[in-house]
Order: sequence, then C-alpha cells, then structure tokens
Amino acid sequence: MKVGFIGLGQMGSAMAANLIRRGHEVTLWNRSLDKAAGLVAAGAKLASSPAAAAQGDVVMTMLADDAAVEAVVYGDKGILEQPALHISQSTISVDLADRLARSHGADAFVSAPVFGRPPAAQAGMLFVIAAGQNAALEAATPALEAISQSIFRVGSSPSQANLVKLGGNFMIVAAIEAFAEAMTLVESGNVSRRDFYEVITRTIFNFPVLRTYGELLVTEAFQPAGFPATLGLKDMNLVDAVAGERQVPMPVLGVMRDHLRSVIATEGTELDLAAMGLAVRRSANR
Amino acid sequence: MKVGFIGLGQMGSAMAANLIRRGHEVTLWNRSLDKAAGLVAAGAKLASSPAAAAQGDVVMTMLADDAAVEAVVYGDKGILEQPALHISQSTISVDLADRLARSHGADAFVSAPVFGRPPAAQAGMLFVIAAGQNAALEAATPALEAISQSIFRVGSSPSQANLVKLGGNFMIVAAIEAFAEAMTLVESGNVSRRDFYEVITRTIFNFPVLRTYGELLVTEAFQPAGFPATLGLKDMNLVDAVAGERQVPMPVLGVMRDHLRSVIATEGTELDLAAMGLAVRRSANR
Amino acid sequence: MKVGFIGLGQMGSAMAANLIRRGHEVTLWNRSLDKAAGLVAAGAKLASSPAAAAQGDVVMTMLADDAAVEAVVYGDKGILEQPALHISQSTISVDLADRLARSHGADAFVSAPVFGRPPAAQAGMLFVIAAGQNAALEAATPALEAISQSIFRVGSSPSQANLVKLGGNFMIVAAIEAFAEAMTLVESGNVSRRDFYEVITRTIFNFPVLRTYGELLVTEAFQPAGFPATLGLKDMNLVDAVAGERQVPMPVLGVMRDHLRSVIATEGTELDLAAMGLAVRRSANR
Amino acid sequence: MKVGFIGLGQMGSAMAANLIRRGHEVTLWNRSLDKAAGLVAAGAKLASSPAAAAQGDVVMTMLADDAAVEAVVYGDKGILEQPALHISQSTISVDLADRLARSHGADAFVSAPVFGRPPAAQAGMLFVIAAGQNAALEAATPALEAISQSIFRVGSSPSQANLVKLGGNFMIVAAIEAFAEAMTLVESGNVSRRDFYEVITRTIFNFPVLRTYGELLVTEAFQPAGFPATLGLKDMNLVDAVAGERQVPMPVLGVMRDHLRSVIATEGTELDLAAMGLAVRRSANR
Repeated sequence: MKVGFIGLGQMGSAMAANLIRRGHEVTLWNRSLDKAAGLVAAGAKLASSPAAAAQGDVVMTMLADDAAVEAVVYGDKGILEQPALHISQSTISVDLADRLARSHGADAFVSAPVFGRPPAAQAGMLFVIAAGQNAALEAATPALEAISQSIFRVGSSPSQANLVKLGGNFMIVAAIEAFAEAMTLVESGNVSRRDFYEVITRTIFNFPVLRTYGELLVTEAFQPAGFPATLGLKDMNLVDAVAGERQVPMPVLGVMRDHLRSVIATEGTELDLAAMGLAVRRSANR
Repeated sequence: MKVGFIGLGQMGSAMAANLIRRGHEVTLWNRSLDKAAGLVAAGAKLASSPAAAAQGDVVMTMLADDAAVEAVVYGDKGILEQPALHISQSTISVDLADRLARSHGADAFVSAPVFGRPPAAQAGMLFVIAAGQNAALEAATPALEAISQSIFRVGSSPSQANLVKLGGNFMIVAAIEAFAEAMTLVESGNVSRRDFYEVITRTIFNFPVLRTYGELLVTEAFQPAGFPATLGLKDMNLVDAVAGERQVPMPVLGVMRDHLRSVIATEGTELDLAAMGLAVRRSANR
Repeated sequence: MKVGFIGLGQMGSAMAANLIRRGHEVTLWNRSLDKAAGLVAAGAKLASSPAAAAQGDVVMTMLADDAAVEAVVYGDKGILEQPALHISQSTISVDLADRLARSHGADAFVSAPVFGRPPAAQAGMLFVIAAGQNAALEAATPALEAISQSIFRVGSSPSQANLVKLGGNFMIVAAIEAFAEAMTLVESGNVSRRDFYEVITRTIFNFPVLRTYGELLVTEAFQPAGFPATLGLKDMNLVDAVAGERQVPMPVLGVMRDHLRSVIATEGTELDLAAMGLAVRRSANR
Repeated sequence: MKVGFIGLGQMGSAMAANLIRRGHEVTLWNRSLDKAAGLVAAGAKLASSPAAAAQGDVVMTMLADDAAVEAVVYGDKGILEQPALHISQSTISVDLADRLARSHGADAFVSAPVFGRPPAAQAGMLFVIAAGQNAALEAATPALEAISQSIFRVGSSPSQANLVKLGGNFMIVAAIEAFAEAMTLVESGNVSRRDFYEVITRTIFNFPVLRTYGELLVTEAFQPAGFPATLGLKDMNLVDAVAGERQVPMPVLGVMRDHLRSVIATEGTELDLAAMGLAVRRSANR
C-alpha cells in the first residue's frame, strides 16, 4: 500500500518504521527532515510537501496539536489538494476532527488516534481507536494493522474516535490525580510513598499506566518529561472544550485543570504530567 | 493455631472457612449465629461471647463499621478481657485503630484490612495490608496466610494499615467517578457506553476493579448492590475524617462525597456504589 | 462632544439616552435600527456604518460579545478606519481588549466596562471601570461621566479594566452559587427559602445584587431572563480563558461552570442566570 | 427579668453588659471568672455553677463549641438541673441543638444564634436568628431584645435557627473565597489588590462583611485573628456534618474546607479566616 506519513516525532517515527517493516511504500513529510534519515535508510521516500506525501492510497498524520494538523491539511500544498484517504492519528479537538471530515468528505477521512507510549509504538503494539464510514475504515485497516495490536471501531462519525481518545486521556490524568491525593494522605501518617505504591500497583490497581505514573509520583523524577504537564493541560482543555459544547459537567476535570495550572505556574513548563502531584502535596504543606 | 473469628458476613464467612481448611482450630462468634452452621459442620466451634472467642492465640474481627468493632471489643464480655492477639481486618477509622492499639497494647494488636471481594475471600486470595509491631505481625502471619495471596507490611503503627486501606478505597471510588464522567462525555457524542467500556478496559485500564464497576456503569444494574453506595460514602467519610485531622486537602474527595450524597438523596440507600455515575449523568441531563 | 454610539440593546440604549440628555452630539449605529427611533426623536443622528459613527471625538461600543465587537471594529467599514477614540464598554475577553489596544494604538483606545443593570443605566448611575493611557482616559471622561455615578481607574493597559469586570462578574455568580447551596441546605431542615432570604439579605448580605438574585432563587421566576444563564456561562468561560493563560487556579469557577452547563443541558437556554440554583437543588433531590 | 448568662468571651461579655444595661438581673457563670469583674462592678452576680446561674427566668449560653455547651448543660451541676428557659446562642451543630431540645423539652429551650461581630455585640446591635415554640420564643424575647437590633424567627424547631446560622456562615466564607480567587486573577494582570478592593466594595459588593474580610485580603494582616481560620473550619465542618446527614451536595463547601486545611497546614492555627486567601494565591504561585 502506498502510505504517506506526516509527523516524525517519537510516536510518528516509530509508527512509520513499522509501516515500512510491514512492506508498505512509505513517503514521509515532516517540518524538519533531520529525523527522517533512519527511515529513508530503511526504504522511505521523502516528499517535498504535505500534498506530495498524499499522492498514494492513504496519508497518515501524527502531529502535536490542532495547529500542526491545520497547517498540513489547509496550508499551502496541504493534503487537502490530494484525494488520498486521510487517517488522522493526532490527539486533536473534536471540533477540528469534524471540520476535517467535512473538508475531506466522508469517504476520504478517518480518525484513528492511539493509546500507547513510544515503546508500544516501536513494537507495533499500539491500540487504535477508529471512527468513520465503513468503506473508509476498511481502506485504512492495512495501514492501521501495521502499527497496532488492536483496532477498536467506535462509530461512523470520525470525531467519535477523538472523543473516546480524549475521554481516555481524561481518565489517565484522573488516575494520577487520585493516586497523588491518596499518596499525600498516607504520607500524613508516615506511610512511605514507595510502600503505598507497592501495595496499590500490586493489588487493586495492577496495570501499566498507573505503574508508570505512580513511579514518577514516588521518585519525583519529573525531568526529562516523558509526557509534559503542558501537553496534559492542552488535552484537558480539549476535553473542557467539548464538554462545554455538549453541556457535560465534569467536576474532576476542573480539579485537574487547576492542579495543572498550579504546577505550571510554580515549576514552569518542563515537567512531566505526573508533577501535578506536586500541587496536591504542596497544598498539604508536604 | 487457635483462632477466634468474629464477624460472619460474606467476607468473614469465607475467611473463616479458609482458616478451617488450612487446619486452624477456629472458634466463631457472630451477633446472629444463623450464618455459622456451615462453618460448624466444617469443624468450627461456637463461642458464647466475643471474649470466649478470644481465648486462643489470636482473634480476628471482620465487621461492618466502627460501631460493630467497638461493641465486640469494649462491650460486655468483649475481647479486651482476653489476652489473645487481636487482628482487626475491618475497614474502620484511623482513630479507632489508634484507640484499639492503645487499649490492647502494642504486642496484642495488629491492623490487617484486606483488598478483595467475596470471590477472592472464598479463594483465599485476598491481599492483606498489615501494620503493627514486628513480633505481633509475626504472630499474626499464619492466620493471615490462610486467607490471602500476599501480605504487605506498611508500618509499625497499626493504624497505618487502615490509612492505606482507606487510601485504596478512595482510589477505587475515584476510578468509578472518572469512568462515569468520561462515559457521560462520550455518550454526548453518541458513542455507546458499551463501546467505551470495551476500549477502556481492554487497553489502558485493563484491570479487574475497573471492569467490575465499569460493567455496572454500562448496564446500570445497580441492584442488588455488591457494595452499596452507603458503605462507599461511609468509607469516604472516614477518609475525610483523617484528611481533616491531618489537614490534607483532597478535592476529588469532595466531588465524590457530593455525588454519593446526590445519588442517595435521589435513589435511596439500596443501590451499588457504581450508581454514583447516575449523579454524573443526570447533571448532564442524560 | 461628538459621540458615536454602537450597540442599542437594553444597556446601550439607556446609555445613549443619557449622553444625549447631557448635551453630547450623538451619532448611532446598530445592526438593526428599529431600536433607534426614540433616540433619534431625542436628537441623535443615524450613521450608515460603524465607521460613519466614528467620525466624532469618541466612539463607544456596548455589544453582546467578542464577535459583535470584532465585527464593528475589524469588519467592512469598521471603526478602525476612523481616528476617533474608541471606548469599549462591552464585557469582552481580555485577549480581544489587548488586540483592540494594539489595533487602535494606546492613544485611541480605552476599555471602560460597567457594573449595573438596565435601571442603573437609565438613571445614569452605572459604575465605570476604566483602564488606558492617561490622556486617553481624560479624553473619555466627559462621555463616561454622562452615563455613570463613578469612574474607577484600574491601570494603564486597557485590558486591565476587562479583567476587573470579569473578576466582578465571577464574584456575582459565586454569590448566587453560595446562596443557592445554603438555601438548599436550610430547606433540608424545612426552613423556607423566603425566611432564609429575609434573614440573609437583611443582615449580613444586605446589598442589591444579592437581593435581586436571591429573590429569583426564592420565587424561581427564571423567565423572562433578566440576564440569561447562557451569558453568565459565556462570561465564566472568558474568566476561564484568562485564568488559563495566566495559570491561575480558580476552583469555585469550575463548580459554577459545571452548574451552568447542567442547568442549560436540563432547562435550555432561556432561563436567568439565577436558574443555576436549580442544578444545586436537583442534585439534592429537592 | 432574671437572666443567667454563661460564656464570657468577647461576644458574651458584651451581650451580658447590654442585659445589665437594660435592667435585667444578671447572674454570670464562666469557666474562668477573671473576665467577670467589670460586669460584677456593673451589677451582675456570680454563680458557683451553671445550675446556679439557671435559677432565674432564662439562662443564655454563648460558648465556643459543642463541647463547651455540652459541659455546661449535661455536666456536673449543669443547667439541665434547673427549669429556666435555656436560650442557646452559640454556633453549635444542628445535632446538638436537636439533642438540647429533647433534653430540655419544647417549652424550655430556644435556639437563638447571632450574626455580628464584637462591636455589634457591644452596641446591642446583633441580629438574632431564633427558633422554637412560640411560647418559649415569647418568653425569650425581652432578653434577646436587650442584645439585638432585630430578631428573625425561622421555625418552631430550635435547630432550624442553627441551620440558618450555619448557612449564613457558609455564605461568608464563600464570599471570602470568591474575593480571593478574583483578586488573584486580577493580580495576574497587574491590577493591585487595593484597586480591586475599592472597585468591588464600592460598587456591586458594598456591604460590611466583605469590606472587613476584603481589607484583610488586601493587607494580609492576618494576625491577631479577629475570627480564626480554625473556627471557620470548625463551622464549615458543622455545615458538612448536617449536609451529610441530609444528603445535600455543596461543592463550594468542599473547595473551602480544602483551602482552610491548606492554610492551617502551612501557616498554623493562629491566622484569621481571611488567610484562606493565601491558599488561593499560593496555588497560583503569587
């Protein structure tokens, strides 16, 4: 399959590598091409514009935020100029996904954001959340299978996948928040963070996401950031935007946005998402 | 080992059965003895008072709340009259655990609450969170091993185990709250609760507690209650009490206590803890 | 003074009438001119465009939201084409105020939002919150004096006045929220809403804003809306936007945005701001 | 009228002085009698026990908390031993008020807490919130008139007055919280606290309670405490207790209890209630 791939961050590079490994003909575009060398060595071609990357069967985008996606779609020589099926995998707003669906048309757009961190991307073991018209989803499947262990279809309107992705990210941040509050509580009784971490992650909350973030809460090794607090706050703002449009009260969201603001106000922008636990601890003077 | 066992609810009966199965000499006491027949058939003796059940090596208590524990310890013919090591496994307040430790003395009291639901209790696969003096913990170990798959020691002061237990219960309720908020959000975009459940519990939140409560959020089969909302609120009030004594702000706790109050005000007292999701959905008019 | 006036809603019409009454030469522009007849009869002229209204000394704008202000400033024949001092009195975002200041230049732009409801506007008894360069503020003063009982200067950067206005509106909504929560509490003990209203507004909270909104909480006469819940939510979203940019946690804001969402989800868009009290009462099943 | 008066703190001493001034025969009891000298000089008698102070027509109690009231009512030589009408003016729990009503009987107990600070007490200008049986309220009126500018009757069950008092105190703390959040927001835009205070308290929130606490937020002169944060938290815990019994969600209450805990954790127990604003500012790193 001829696959364009746009966005060579940590996640995107690993996904593109798996597409090549599975035998797809991959054409890359990225704002800076210094990250592309290894992929070119592995067989990828370089495109001179997003549109040039979108001349095959599908074009996948894996970018940082709404603005980056808008630039490669609607900008000069954007992929909208080409008929390839656009598979949007970035964590973007529900509004932008709706707009992309209107711009591309129902048969040329699929939303397919992913759950999983860079190691899962490297192993081709991501989880894909996909939504769109059936025919478009079928057409996207070979490319999506190359990067994932499972594909979940959640609806025929592409932005439904983005909504599910945002809902999942909300739950991750909420799990960190709850772990931080509980950890601060037990510390007030001189139970060590490490002991609490061991009990929780080896008994009732034995799953990788909580082990990863819980470890950070224990060690407070918030730099370098695996997933920065600023991106976490961006995601929670996307959740707030869609919750606001649909009038869905989400009180835990308000708590977490405040804690993220607090930690960014106090610590700056370089820390990991788990640093939101600092806002909890400091409020208790610990 | 001669083990007294007090409290034959769903959890306690299963725990006592495992003690018998592992060869301990078990003497039972319960407010009503109708639940004791099977255990007597399996070899247990019946005691005529809590104190009579506490004439062996250890006496374990597994009761509903502070008042029930206070009654069997401090009441007429209470276990305080006997020297057996008291292993307190109920979910009680940190304050009561501290008081029990003072009453029994450090060498005669261990706190050992558990994580796990009735099926885990039946299988002898509970997780035990234990705290107390080393010698007391050593003395308690044979009895605790009979009911559990692991024992975590979290400190030398017994109430530290209660604090960890309450912290864990807080995290469980917070996970339900977050799942309910996210589920309401995605429903606002016509993603089905079932689809969201499948995505979440088979990808980033793949662990039994969330599957159990998530299933209830999807089906809304809140009766009969596996674990009633009223008990969940009781536990959250215990968390609030100790957080208040130690001046630990826990904003997610406030959100959840309000939702539990709301669902009890609206639905009464018979529903499962997961019914707190109704408070979330109704606030969004869904 | 030659004064252009743009925006003839309830507030704007009353303000324009006072400008005429005080002897200013007033030129009006409004999207629909049906509201202008009385003012023309009193001596105002009609302009054919926003720019045409901005050919005097100052042009005042009193419009519903950011979009309406952007249209008359940046749109076709917008006031930016004319050099008149722009006095912006609408409740708009801090960001838009900053952009207007850049577009007009420091000597041609003043922010001067107001506190007060239509009766105060009719009586020329508004409170003006003004910010901008001193010379610009001096130039604006005669026009502002015509509509107000006092003018408070809060800074040299125009958007500071918008920030203060948003802070004040936040406090009003918070006062309604707190009154609603307390009223629901006392009702749970069979104290009547009216009795509580009398006690509160005749003792510790004896001031007009709370009497106005408290009366609505008691009678629940939420239609027609004096100030709609939708506008209140819009304002709270403006507060959230600037709080987010400056990383200021405001937990009561989160509570109130959720309640406003809830009441709009449940009751629709026609109710008064005070209807947010319904979200409080319903959560208590009252 | 023969009036016993128990509790000679700042408030109680001033109230007792007004009773004497109005010609009542006042008999005092206080835990420590060093504060009684001035009142004795003015004509009061000293009692040797609470019961001895309760041998007249009415006995008024104005004490710090539930425990202090329980001690003088139910303790050795408590006022329960005497038939005098008990007028309870302390800020106590709804539960204790209900218990006192049962103990004394409906014709011998009135709840009559007050709004107002020491200067209002000295001037005999308190506001009294009274509840109880009509005959009992009538009997209490001469004594209550001596200390107040108005008496509001809110129900026939005494604890209804306590509920209203707690609701009012909740609203005061909420007003401080909202002022602190808004003040922190405008400071983020370099508007001075003092300027914001002037605007708010001279326009839409022009009433004494907010001026008093707002001044403290501006100057941060939190010591000596006029009304300590610890007492504010005690009151908010009483609100939480009754809200919990009646299943009334009060989300702003949760926010404020957390902020009070935070400031006590960080600053200790000596600061004024208004210091809760520090918890707000610090979360924004200001």
